[in-house]
Amino acid sequence: MTKGLSVKKDENFSKWYSEVLEKAEITDLRYNVKGFVVIRPWGAMILEEMYKLYEQALQKRGHKPSFFPTVIPKKNFEKEAEHVKGFTPEVFWLKKVKGEDELALRPTSETAMYQMYSLWIRSWRDLPFKLYQRANVFRYETKATRPLIRAREFYWIEAHDCFATKEEAEEQVQEDIRTTEEVMHQKFGIPFLPMKRPIWDKFAGAEYTIGSDVIMPDGKLLQQPSTHLLGQHFSKAFNVKFKNKEGKEEYVWQTCYGPAISRILASVISQHGDNFGLILPFIISPIQVIIVPIFTKQNKEKIIKEVKKIKDELIDKGIKAEIDLREEKRPGEKYYEWELKGVPFRIELGEKEIENKEATLFIRDTRKKEKISLKEIGKIKKLGEEYDKRLLKKADDFMKDRIIECKTLKEIEEALKEKKIAKVEFCSTEKEGISCAEVIEKEIGAEIRGTLGNKKEIPKGNCIVCGKKAKEVVYIGRSY
Amino acid sequence: MTKGLSVKKDENFSKWYSEVLEKAEITDLRYNVKGFVVIRPWGAMILEEMYKLYEQALQKRGHKPSFFPTVIPKKNFEKEAEHVKGFTPEVFWLKKVKGEDELALRPTSETAMYQMYSLWIRSWRDLPFKLYQRANVFRYETKATRPLIRAREFYWIEAHDCFATKEEAEEQVQEDIRTTEEVMHQKFGIPFLPMKRPIWDKFAGAEYTIGSDVIMPDGKLLQQPSTHLLGQHFSKAFNVKFKNKEGKEEYVWQTCYGPAISRILASVISQHGDNFGLILPFIISPIQVIIVPIFTKQNKEKIIKEVKKIKDELIDKGIKAEIDLREEKRPGEKYYEWELKGVPFRIELGEKEIENKEATLFIRDTRKKEKISLKEIGKIKKLGEEYDKRLLKKADDFMKDRIIECKTLKEIEEALKEKKIAKVEFCSTEKEGISCAEVIEKEIGAEIRGTLGNKKEIPKGNCIVCGKKAKEVVYIGRSY
Repeated sequence: MTKGLSVKKDENFSKWYSEVLEKAEITDLRYNVKGFVVIRPWGAMILEEMYKLYEQALQKRGHKPSFFPTVIPKKNFEKEAEHVKGFTPEVFWLKKVKGEDELALRPTSETAMYQMYSLWIRSWRDLPFKLYQRANVFRYETKATRPLIRAREFYWIEAHDCFATKEEAEEQVQEDIRTTEEVMHQKFGIPFLPMKRPIWDKFAGAEYTIGSDVIMPDGKLLQQPSTHLLGQHFSKAFNVKFKNKEGKEEYVWQTCYGPAISRILASVISQHGDNFGLILPFIISPIQVIIVPIFTKQNKEKIIKEVKKIKDELIDKGIKAEIDLREEKRPGEKYYEWELKGVPFRIELGEKEIENKEATLFIRDTRKKEKISLKEIGKIKKLGEEYDKRLLKKADDFMKDRIIECKTLKEIEEALKEKKIAKVEFCSTEKEGISCAEVIEKEIGAEIRGTLGNKKEIPKGNCIVCGKKAKEVVYIGRSY
Repeated sequence: MTKGLSVKKDENFSKWYSEVLEKAEITDLRYNVKGFVVIRPWGAMILEEMYKLYEQALQKRGHKPSFFPTVIPKKNFEKEAEHVKGFTPEVFWLKKVKGEDELALRPTSETAMYQMYSLWIRSWRDLPFKLYQRANVFRYETKATRPLIRAREFYWIEAHDCFATKEEAEEQVQEDIRTTEEVMHQKFGIPFLPMKRPIWDKFAGAEYTIGSDVIMPDGKLLQQPSTHLLGQHFSKAFNVKFKNKEGKEEYVWQTCYGPAISRILASVISQHGDNFGLILPFIISPIQVIIVPIFTKQNKEKIIKEVKKIKDELIDKGIKAEIDLREEKRPGEKYYEWELKGVPFRIELGEKEIENKEATLFIRDTRKKEKISLKEIGKIKKLGEEYDKRLLKKADDFMKDRIIECKTLKEIEEALKEKKIAKVEFCSTEKEGISCAEVIEKEIGAEIRGTLGNKKEIPKGNCIVCGKKAKEVVYIGRSY
């Protein structure tokens, strides 16, 4: 039990998560509207770093930013039949104003954006057409909400792309998985299973959906960015057409991709944190090095001068460094606070260190201290890269350990009990598989999450439920 | 008359403005909800650059970012009497859900944020407390809306600060004016009059308001960032108290500051643009140098190789450069398009230029072409700084020219007719001045915009309306 947190992460993950959010000052749940939370400065600064990297990755792949209105007229919303059915229960509506349309707060923006696409896209030369927006969206969740994980307002990016052919659109879906891999996995250190959802679990209005499932410490799955092949469902509903090279009009093929940055932050916190609090990846930590000077009245001036020099040097090297100069806190209290907040490196500097031309470097993930020569302070950049690699490796090991091949329902139950994910051979993720999925749900209380979306796995035997020849290898777990 | 725009800026500003927004692809007005527009990629990228500089300036002065919910319960909203009176007509309400509170979409976030402040602020050590959020806000405007200038949803920053004393809060108001000066004037090139509003025109719930008035090309004033001394009105309503050094509880003194980034973009467009389209300040242009290669089938490869080298060199120097490689457009069409979009510099490079180891450099504001040696391409950074200084000087000259001291109502009328602002001696901007202000409004159709908020100007004579001894020097104009 640490001084700060009242529970250990592996003993009561749910309580640990709530406490970390509160004590590391990520969110505050005391806003007086159900399902809406306040993001405090430390949380907001982390989100901004995450947004930056995500937007860079999307722009690099040809996406351009835009801003669409938050409100969507009901009549737009109703244009795509499956979409309206899927989303209507989750919509917040505005109070109708006489003489004006009924308006929804966007739960997602297909029906806001595609009417404009139909005005903008004219010819094959306009394709591919790739746009995204950074936006807050609203869903009237009736399930229990959880901060950052399931909220009635959340912060995401939505990318909406159009292509001339189905093949190009399908390639975009694969590109989206690679973007998730590059940013969420490689940069933020969150491994995932790209799950092609069973037909009964796809996005409302899509041909198919690939959701990224992340395994949480309690063994439950949390869906992170999903990418959807929308096909021509929406382009037909919104009349998004282009003239092909032969001058003939065709409907575009569409995809959309939705990384919920605030929810990814939930995974970052859950994946990397420990019993002492947050552990932030170096690459997204708003402060990468916190410098704590240790001084008395006598040597205060001298030591502050020295730590300022170190800070400037770190900043020149492109490292985000800050000095904790608060006088009302003792060094020990500062240490504890910055550990809780997950800052990767701490430099402690007092009289003795200055004499020896070195500092004490505390490393958050290993919780080890070492001496670092003041001359070599810039090597923290490299140490930061190594630090992120350690977090990544630890997360990867965690996930590898959690996937268990199962041959019987009993084995699935055992796996889930041990907070693991079952990998099983299954008849089908098309309609004919629904009855077997229902058996899994009723008997084990778990879901067929899907098949690998970026690599076909070939089953050798029969469906674990009905015994017919298996067409798929599926992953089964419980979800948030 | 240019090829692109059908009107000249000084002949029909209003039409010019609409055409520039459309043709430079800043906004699209065809979204089918009144008062809501789509921000297209070029507009979104400029806004992002502007946000970045504004947030930097706020953070430098100790503000921390945060995100508060978009929805505000009615009961919060009603806590500060003047505020609810001022804002209620402008609020979008959500359709009430049984068993839950009535919710408003934030028109501004005092009533969302300050309930949290009362939880967070405990002692004098927590002060000053300076927080901001980047947010979209909603106002049910009943006046005619205009894209970016007056919309029902807009993109802003709101900073909300708390202090131990009134003096510190008043100093924050002055700091806010300096932030506007540093960012909007010095960086974006938009001069303004910091107008301390007459008492009858202050923010609902404030002790006083200083709005930044910008003179538009049509002579009308557009209010840009305003800063408000809220005093203790809200801290009393929301119970935001701190223990002072003597251990006694006091209410905090508050200020708020609201730069509407999308509206500032309207001023950037209006201030700097010309008959050929936008002219963007170098510092916020998403593309600072557009490179247009001029090639035939024979030398295409060689020339593209060369422009890529130039682009890389510019990017290494921290200059945002892009190559326009589109094959379906002729160079002339590209020139015209990037001029319309306001890109500061264009590099034209063909066979001849490569032979001479130089390029043709087109400069957007002066519309002059000059030769630049390929060896010295990095000096565009410095040219960019000079370019921004020219825009700033031109804007300053424009404003200086527009303020006319007037001694009679007739002179005021004349000044306004010439698209100018009248500077006059006036009895009072407190309650006792209302009747004189009404005379100005009825007889001339203009408003008392206020007195200089950062420097007291001493009147020598009598009020231009009632003839009593003048206490103030005020500025009079018509506004958006």
